[in-house]
Amino acid sequence: MSRFFSDKFNGLTPYVPGEQPKNREYIKLNTNESPFPPCEGVIRALNRDERSKLNLYSDPSASALVEAISSVYGVRAENIAVGNGSDEILAFIFNAFCDQKKGMAFPDITYGFYPVFASMFGVAHRVIPLDKDFKIRIEDYKDIKDNVIIANPNAQTGILLEKGDVEALILQDRSRLVVIDEAYMDFAGTSAVELTKKYDNVIAVQTFSKSRSLAGARVGFAIAECNLINDINTMKYSFNPYNINRLSIIAGREAMLDTDYMKSCVQKVIENREYTKGALEAIGFRVLDSRANFLLAESDTVSGRELYNKLKERGILVRYLGDRRIENFVRITVGNREQMDALIAAVKEILCECERKE
Amino acid sequence: MSRFFSDKFNGLTPYVPGEQPKNREYIKLNTNESPFPPCEGVIRALNRDERSKLNLYSDPSASALVEAISSVYGVRAENIAVGNGSDEILAFIFNAFCDQKKGMAFPDITYGFYPVFASMFGVAHRVIPLDKDFKIRIEDYKDIKDNVIIANPNAQTGILLEKGDVEALILQDRSRLVVIDEAYMDFAGTSAVELTKKYDNVIAVQTFSKSRSLAGARVGFAIAECNLINDINTMKYSFNPYNINRLSIIAGREAMLDTDYMKSCVQKVIENREYTKGALEAIGFRVLDSRANFLLAESDTVSGRELYNKLKERGILVRYLGDRRIENFVRITVGNREQMDALIAAVKEILCECERKE
Repeated sequence: MSRFFSDKFNGLTPYVPGEQPKNREYIKLNTNESPFPPCEGVIRALNRDERSKLNLYSDPSASALVEAISSVYGVRAENIAVGNGSDEILAFIFNAFCDQKKGMAFPDITYGFYPVFASMFGVAHRVIPLDKDFKIRIEDYKDIKDNVIIANPNAQTGILLEKGDVEALILQDRSRLVVIDEAYMDFAGTSAVELTKKYDNVIAVQTFSKSRSLAGARVGFAIAECNLINDINTMKYSFNPYNINRLSIIAGREAMLDTDYMKSCVQKVIENREYTKGALEAIGFRVLDSRANFLLAESDTVSGRELYNKLKERGILVRYLGDRRIENFVRITVGNREQMDALIAAVKEILCECERKE
Repeated sequence: MSRFFSDKFNGLTPYVPGEQPKNREYIKLNTNESPFPPCEGVIRALNRDERSKLNLYSDPSASALVEAISSVYGVRAENIAVGNGSDEILAFIFNAFCDQKKGMAFPDITYGFYPVFASMFGVAHRVIPLDKDFKIRIEDYKDIKDNVIIANPNAQTGILLEKGDVEALILQDRSRLVVIDEAYMDFAGTSAVELTKKYDNVIAVQTFSKSRSLAGARVGFAIAECNLINDINTMKYSFNPYNINRLSIIAGREAMLDTDYMKSCVQKVIENREYTKGALEAIGFRVLDSRANFLLAESDTVSGRELYNKLKERGILVRYLGDRRIENFVRITVGNREQMDALIAAVKEILCECERKE
């Protein structure tokens, strides 16, 4: 820390992204990326002509991208805000709508960035434990006056909160904002986007990083009532108006418009998820009922940390989160079938090793 | 404004970027972009193979880019922070090092984003008027206890503060941080990067948007003593760790390594700048002594606002800032020779029209 760092950041602990090792090639199952390349339209659209125009600023309103989202989701452009990944959108939301008086509430096991955003922007935050089965119990939010953010399906667990429960959460207290972080929703079920047309106290946040195979382009968006979107855009225009670069606007547009490709990727991921879940359960793992593109799994034979280390030695990276209540679990991104077979084979090997030792 | 917007943003007025009209093709001389495409290395490096990997997250440490900056500027990687444009870096700096107690001081005429950042992050700010010739007088900063940010060459005026004056500013008060925003320095003279090796209270900020023809890629960086860089990176990792997308990391690397191309572009811009300045002075304009890639110019015959409007009617976009003290000026980005000739011809026409009316 320098001698100039502001006191207001005493105690700020930055987010730690999943490791991106450069020393060797891993089967990378640790950051919930898509195992499939972006759709062909993305690759083609970033042609020499577009690359040659990188001397010009991007469109701050990113209208080509916003129009594509608008047409696919059936909402108006004024109901859409776009960001440099959904992390930026989430940061704008924490900053715009929360402070010391109106805080943010979220589950104890969820996206690890929420407490960091709260700390970064001086937002009071309240942690609501998941139940013993790692589920969100909406009754626990009934008397919470703070705004609420829910990842749905939930980060780390993958468990889905059904649409009726999401609506009930919104209706519990209309003076409270409910943010639904739907990074993994394309793998799961019905988005809260429809609810944003009925209620002015809900924001649906989505990303291009998972189902649309564009983690490397950094594109995310929010859909909500237009005054909420205006406020998010006030943050953007007070922070970084050209927040999405030229090529990512084009890539995002193409990826949004190719719904068939997205759906085919999602279908394969779901098949591989269920296949992997079955294989892990067959060798004694407890695997949570994930509706996302990852699995949270634990075994009685090998600890989460050990499994992570032994997989890494074998060239397979999974995520060991180490958080309280899930310290024995590893989080495994669902990749393609070959990657899953390699994972399952390695896990079996490791279990045999551990059993021999006992 | 929604009913959820935090009170802390009462009075926040977002930055207004230069207009990016889509209704017709303009000669665009309003946002200080380079008239030249990025170097061939950039265009080639963003090949199909790299575009096919957009499903993978970018490297949060952006080490390929940092290494290129490190080798060109002769500083260590630990002295470099990179951002999604220099706007993001500047935002991190305002937030990291300033607050209500330690504010930020800057000139009355400078980059219009500084007061917005101050307002966005709840930073006390102090405005120090330029002298009557639009120059920074470093004596005026002698007793300022706040941190100081200077665009050098200065935004809007293009006037350069000589390196000796920059060093004097740093030495005036070592308990104060001095930020030198060098967006236009490649067109002007000697960067403060060397001073960052001697002093721990200075940060040099640069961008790829001007001399390196990458405005559309959004890449900027800071060079400073390593603890200052750590603090900037604490902001980044608490806000958006994957802040630079995959393709912009590659583009930035290539643009940084091709110093010859950058220098040839800069040389042409300087020639066109002096050519245009001469032509405008020959028809009675007052043109400030810009060392940047733009000219701030005024005429007694036509007001700044009228000149802006009449140029726009003719398909030429310049920037009318309208700020106090420069309300009669327009800011003209230096383009290629054909663009400058078109501008000069249009200005002559407009002057004739105005003179006829009188």
